[in-house]
Amino acid sequence: MSANTHSLSPFGTARSTVQGTPLDKEELRKTDAFMRASLYLCLGMLYLQKNPLLKEPLKKEHLKSRLLGHWGSDSGQIFTYIHFNRLIKKYGLNGLFVSGPGHGAPAVLSQSYLEGVYSEVYPNITEDEEGMRLFFKQFSFPGGIGSHATPETPGSLHEGGELGYSISHAFGTVFDNPDLITLTMVGDGESETGPLATSWHSTKFLNPITDGAVLPVLHLNGYKINNPTVLARISHEELEALFIGYGWKPYFVEGSDLESMHQAMAATLEQAVGEIKQYQKQARDSGKSFRPRWPMIVLRSPKGWTAPRDVSGHHLEGYWRAHQIPLADVASNTEHLALLESWMKSYKPDELFVDGKLIPELKTLVPEGNLRMSANPVANGGLVRKALRLPDFKKYALDVNPGITNSPSMANMAVWLRDVVAANMTNFRLFGPDETESNKLGAVYEAGKKVWMGDFLPEDGDGGNLAHEGRVMEILSEHTVEGWLEGYVLSGRHGLLNSYEPFIHIIDSMVNQHCKWIEKCLEVEWRAKVSSLNILLTATVWRQDHNGFTHQDPGFLDVVANKSPEVVRIYLPPDGNTLLSVMSHCLDSKNYVNVIVADKQDHLQYLNMEDAIAHCTKGLGIWEWASTFPDEDPDVVMASCGDVPTMESLAAVALLKQYLPELKIRFVNVVDLFKLISNIDHPHGLTDKDFKAIFTDDKPIIFNFHSYPWLVHRLTYKRPGHNNIHVRGYKEKGNIDTPLELAIRNETDRFSLAIDAIDRLPGLKNKGSLTREKLLNEQIAARTSAFENGIDADKYRSWRWPYGPKTAEGVLDQVQSKLGLAGNDAPPAAVVGTSE
Amino acid sequence: MSANTHSLSPFGTARSTVQGTPLDKEELRKTDAFMRASLYLCLGMLYLQKNPLLKEPLKKEHLKSRLLGHWGSDSGQIFTYIHFNRLIKKYGLNGLFVSGPGHGAPAVLSQSYLEGVYSEVYPNITEDEEGMRLFFKQFSFPGGIGSHATPETPGSLHEGGELGYSISHAFGTVFDNPDLITLTMVGDGESETGPLATSWHSTKFLNPITDGAVLPVLHLNGYKINNPTVLARISHEELEALFIGYGWKPYFVEGSDLESMHQAMAATLEQAVGEIKQYQKQARDSGKSFRPRWPMIVLRSPKGWTAPRDVSGHHLEGYWRAHQIPLADVASNTEHLALLESWMKSYKPDELFVDGKLIPELKTLVPEGNLRMSANPVANGGLVRKALRLPDFKKYALDVNPGITNSPSMANMAVWLRDVVAANMTNFRLFGPDETESNKLGAVYEAGKKVWMGDFLPEDGDGGNLAHEGRVMEILSEHTVEGWLEGYVLSGRHGLLNSYEPFIHIIDSMVNQHCKWIEKCLEVEWRAKVSSLNILLTATVWRQDHNGFTHQDPGFLDVVANKSPEVVRIYLPPDGNTLLSVMSHCLDSKNYVNVIVADKQDHLQYLNMEDAIAHCTKGLGIWEWASTFPDEDPDVVMASCGDVPTMESLAAVALLKQYLPELKIRFVNVVDLFKLISNIDHPHGLTDKDFKAIFTDDKPIIFNFHSYPWLVHRLTYKRPGHNNIHVRGYKEKGNIDTPLELAIRNETDRFSLAIDAIDRLPGLKNKGSLTREKLLNEQIAARTSAFENGIDADKYRSWRWPYGPKTAEGVLDQVQSKLGLAGNDAPPAAVVGTSE
Repeated sequence: MSANTHSLSPFGTARSTVQGTPLDKEELRKTDAFMRASLYLCLGMLYLQKNPLLKEPLKKEHLKSRLLGHWGSDSGQIFTYIHFNRLIKKYGLNGLFVSGPGHGAPAVLSQSYLEGVYSEVYPNITEDEEGMRLFFKQFSFPGGIGSHATPETPGSLHEGGELGYSISHAFGTVFDNPDLITLTMVGDGESETGPLATSWHSTKFLNPITDGAVLPVLHLNGYKINNPTVLARISHEELEALFIGYGWKPYFVEGSDLESMHQAMAATLEQAVGEIKQYQKQARDSGKSFRPRWPMIVLRSPKGWTAPRDVSGHHLEGYWRAHQIPLADVASNTEHLALLESWMKSYKPDELFVDGKLIPELKTLVPEGNLRMSANPVANGGLVRKALRLPDFKKYALDVNPGITNSPSMANMAVWLRDVVAANMTNFRLFGPDETESNKLGAVYEAGKKVWMGDFLPEDGDGGNLAHEGRVMEILSEHTVEGWLEGYVLSGRHGLLNSYEPFIHIIDSMVNQHCKWIEKCLEVEWRAKVSSLNILLTATVWRQDHNGFTHQDPGFLDVVANKSPEVVRIYLPPDGNTLLSVMSHCLDSKNYVNVIVADKQDHLQYLNMEDAIAHCTKGLGIWEWASTFPDEDPDVVMASCGDVPTMESLAAVALLKQYLPELKIRFVNVVDLFKLISNIDHPHGLTDKDFKAIFTDDKPIIFNFHSYPWLVHRLTYKRPGHNNIHVRGYKEKGNIDTPLELAIRNETDRFSLAIDAIDRLPGLKNKGSLTREKLLNEQIAARTSAFENGIDADKYRSWRWPYGPKTAEGVLDQVQSKLGLAGNDAPPAAVVGTSE
Repeated sequence: MSANTHSLSPFGTARSTVQGTPLDKEELRKTDAFMRASLYLCLGMLYLQKNPLLKEPLKKEHLKSRLLGHWGSDSGQIFTYIHFNRLIKKYGLNGLFVSGPGHGAPAVLSQSYLEGVYSEVYPNITEDEEGMRLFFKQFSFPGGIGSHATPETPGSLHEGGELGYSISHAFGTVFDNPDLITLTMVGDGESETGPLATSWHSTKFLNPITDGAVLPVLHLNGYKINNPTVLARISHEELEALFIGYGWKPYFVEGSDLESMHQAMAATLEQAVGEIKQYQKQARDSGKSFRPRWPMIVLRSPKGWTAPRDVSGHHLEGYWRAHQIPLADVASNTEHLALLESWMKSYKPDELFVDGKLIPELKTLVPEGNLRMSANPVANGGLVRKALRLPDFKKYALDVNPGITNSPSMANMAVWLRDVVAANMTNFRLFGPDETESNKLGAVYEAGKKVWMGDFLPEDGDGGNLAHEGRVMEILSEHTVEGWLEGYVLSGRHGLLNSYEPFIHIIDSMVNQHCKWIEKCLEVEWRAKVSSLNILLTATVWRQDHNGFTHQDPGFLDVVANKSPEVVRIYLPPDGNTLLSVMSHCLDSKNYVNVIVADKQDHLQYLNMEDAIAHCTKGLGIWEWASTFPDEDPDVVMASCGDVPTMESLAAVALLKQYLPELKIRFVNVVDLFKLISNIDHPHGLTDKDFKAIFTDDKPIIFNFHSYPWLVHRLTYKRPGHNNIHVRGYKEKGNIDTPLELAIRNETDRFSLAIDAIDRLPGLKNKGSLTREKLLNEQIAARTSAFENGIDADKYRSWRWPYGPKTAEGVLDQVQSKLGLAGNDAPPAAVVGTSE
């Protein structure tokens, strides 16, 4: 079943699906010249730090000391960019360019320089010989710019350092951007990644009326670092079938002969853009949306196209050797140095640049103003970002009797979220991997259903909540929804991803990369801040008892905590009102990755809205109503972070209070995890003084934590009294358990915590030992009952704080009064942490 | 472009590509009865803890207190399993069943019970009424088994808790298993994940002569948790094209009518297995391998097939409501309880079981012995595992002058690895995402090239290293290579994955899940230990200067460190001989995930082979030759972990020695990261006493670490003297740097480390301040030179330990003598850590 290998060769006269020669001789000549100018700049970036226009004979000392960068995909990308520009000019298109292939920055950088945008945003990189020299030198040079389309790259919102997200990012940009066409170069190496492979299905979620279009150009340049690519080595028949199967209409443009390739690409892009506009018109005129088989282009051109085909007896152009620096030994090999010079001169820089500036004749090929793709404000999304219209979350408050009310925090928040959706119908979307309903967020469907452009069946009417136009985006690919959200946010909009906690690790690397992007953006002056990327994690480890070991992993927080403190925020609201406050804060914030962890089941409530706001404002605090002798120094601090751990900690306090009523217990809850770290290391961090005032520096602290316990140690190891912090959290040991049993196995249950406190208080002596024994017996009874019945006994499932809200008489009022909240109808706007 | 929706309905008489009625009436009757038996058992697992055969009228008290489990995909999986059994019996096939759809355990558990295997491995679960009751009760019950095909499930090597890996796992099982056919049920939800979407391309890496075959059955049951699936809602034309594009030949079996579906599936599986055998015969007889368009099956059947179609006015069968427990309210709704009873009775348990045992007539449908898929030893790979034949790594030793020799550690290790490959040509493979050559492991191609079943081009002869038969597996999908490796190891073989360090986060979640799998296996008595999963990370953060910020992330270690200490091991060999020792140890080990981090560039060497073995055996230790006054108590401890950090630490010692010759410096290097943690928390951990003997508990420790610094704190926070440990490591702050500049920015460079030491030694007074100033000036000079030249000055790039090996005269000999190594020609076999 071997293919006709001829068709797999990227060389020769153009072979294309669409025929035609739309370019007249003059246009062809100019297009070719523009491409040569761009290619020349690429080589300059790879090799030169002096003599940028080769006015002098090329010498070793003109070269950079260390040659770094990639040539492989530059020419194909430039070729495509230029031809798309032609249509942008012709039709006034709103076009964006997403560069998928790895290390393809020279292509887009050179275009940005030719467009004049580069010099506009970096005034030192002028359009003259010295500017060109600096432009060349800074590339892959210490203190300079990288070989990817990094945040410093005008027109880029997709770096491509880690491969696989070009298509999902591109779709993110065009949702709710009906006029935008995002042309997306997809590397054939990148195409082998899982995230890219499934993201082709994004067409089932794109509405031709309300959304723009993605025009993918699969760049079959045939090779990765050191291997052929899969898609370049299957038959034409299979390749075509694959994209038809993915729902696209593939047009092929294959070859290396420049003249015929220019004509073929011009004709093909014209056809593709025409089809896009035609489908959009049809849908928009009729008001009837449908899923077209959207056009895409397969561009098969040689890797390193226009480089010498053979060097020193080995293939260069059209082979993997063209991947990085084509002639790596130019500094030591005079023959290769001469070859480089003649190669660069073959682009005829003298004809293209005058004193380093592109000649006016060629400048006319560049679109005007913001139509220049490297100036498209969509790629600097903060510029076009409109603030989210946030309904006042306080109006959605749960009525709370602290420690007694049991309510669905998540479903209640979903009502507020529904109204967020309703107030921002073209500016906000909710994303999730088929878990939105399971995560109790189904209320949002009242404002916006799930977008579905796949086929419908009659049964969908039975609660399917599917629609062509909707606000919820669900596909069972964490990678795709995350990629969509990133693209949506980076192009200036707002969104929230909801996911099961255990499987968010699937996108560890994507979130890492997004953190790096927004952190770097802070250093790039012309970048405007985008909305935060918000991730709501639920189906948490402590309620995954029945799903078992595979569903137990709260470790995403560790991954996030390693990222720059400038951009990461982690919140674990203990209950419903704090969840509302936190969510509102996060959705209103900019340039962060906010991670919010909350249980989706009915849950014990602790704070009324005023207290919740006060608590979130501080980020952590003493709960005096849950403490004993709150005005005195404590014997022990019971601390908690996370909703389920907070309930067990409270229950431990209740047990201790029952058996050891004279014990002075301080109850501390942490909402904002980075409060634990020093203010030196994170903008939210407490000073050591404040930390001590809350936790003490000499009393045992029994800290019940939502995630792996070591994260708390990693955050607090420098704190005074750190040796007194005893953290309980999740540890790997899988089983099928009841919730209480799961907690017991991890020593995060009420009994273990109370015993832990007793063990740290040798002064209790006999009374401690006796209590310890009682607690152990109660624990055994609880386990036995659970194992016999397959479910926790009612007294554990339905536990309530047994002392009512008045335990610490009047304390709540005092606290509120101290904070200036008592009787205040308009508490301060929700904030979490000391600064944004 | 809307499809004919009729074709998307799963209901009705069978529609199939292959026609025929191969089952006679008797076979049909028995097949149907067997399916009913299996379905009955599924419902029993979901609902019952008593009255398993419904001998009494069903009452609430027979139900489990909490109903957990999933019904949705069970019937389709059972249907397929039974029909594959027919061919296993008919042809004596060596068949394995991989269950991809989420929560499909009842299907395979019921089959295992009917096969009698379950009672063989769990003698308490007998084939009688009480055994069946226990079998039902334990399912999704505290202390029992989960709703996935967990390690407790006979015949399973794929849990499927996290979706997306069924196909890559399946391919892993059949590589070098030429007789095996792994039938793989693929969920249509799972199909939307990225990892699954790209893994269909695995056919380009499967050799019909040396490998077995994967027979995928895509189970289009139409729904995920709460949404339709993409593949179930595209046209037949698109769906067929997609799989042709992926390189398969799809056969459709669609419908719900049992009789015609049985005939269609029997005929289709017969066709598919026939084609597989035919392709294999053709290739094997001719000795000419080729890539067939392998058969696959698309099974479209209703979700929850055979459940009631409608309940209380809502769709159940054929809709997403059948996903989990179909009648969740049976305990409170007597009508639904009665419905459940009649539904279960509709399978006619009385006709199928006598006293809980499958009637003999149906037992004849079960294959014999190990042909029963739940007894296939391949799924318990430790049973068929053959020890790896490991060439003596000591023969590959680098000749080392400590601190002076500069050699390519990785390329040298690759020579040994080549010989590992050569000695295990059907038992070991090397996996990588297109990075093997870049990672300097290209020597392995001399023993086994890269497997490539895609098309070839003439230019591949120019160093392509591709072959139909090979030992290196490369596709640009970390997910796919990891999935292949997992399948390969779990089915009893050996392997190594090599990857760039920054992108290993892409498979955080897969590695997490594999850790969970092998940890759980330790608790399952009948599971034999498999080989370790070995991950070699290179292109590390400290040499990613030019690739920039996206390529800087050493945080995989944090993810791994959260997993069970029973199964995770992390090694950071400082140089070439320690790398050899560590690699040999890891490849020889069982049931771990071993992570090895090492630079791939030429690197300074420290230890000759004897010292390397001694050092690795201890896992960490004092390097006396790099210490000053090694017989005295130190003023300061300079510690390092990782190769680049070790070089900078050594250079810091050299600087301190130069400027402050009276300073007593102890140099400590850590190879085995878990040595740092207490022996209570990890089997490799040092006792506090040993820790103190090496690090002291009262002297400043300047610890230069490869990864994020907090990991060392997380491992050592309980250690005596932890407050003295000052860890330097990587922090997020991206730039394009020279290696030295990158280190300086992170304070892990020689100057910063030396200054750090001085700052911790106030006793140095003026001399310290003066030295500090000199060091700062040297640092500034180094930076300036780098920025001007674009490259580190030679004196930093080519730094060597300036004191020669004789600094601490005779110390090396003394150390070796103490360890009993001096003059010993046969040092102990390589071990790392205190225990395996």
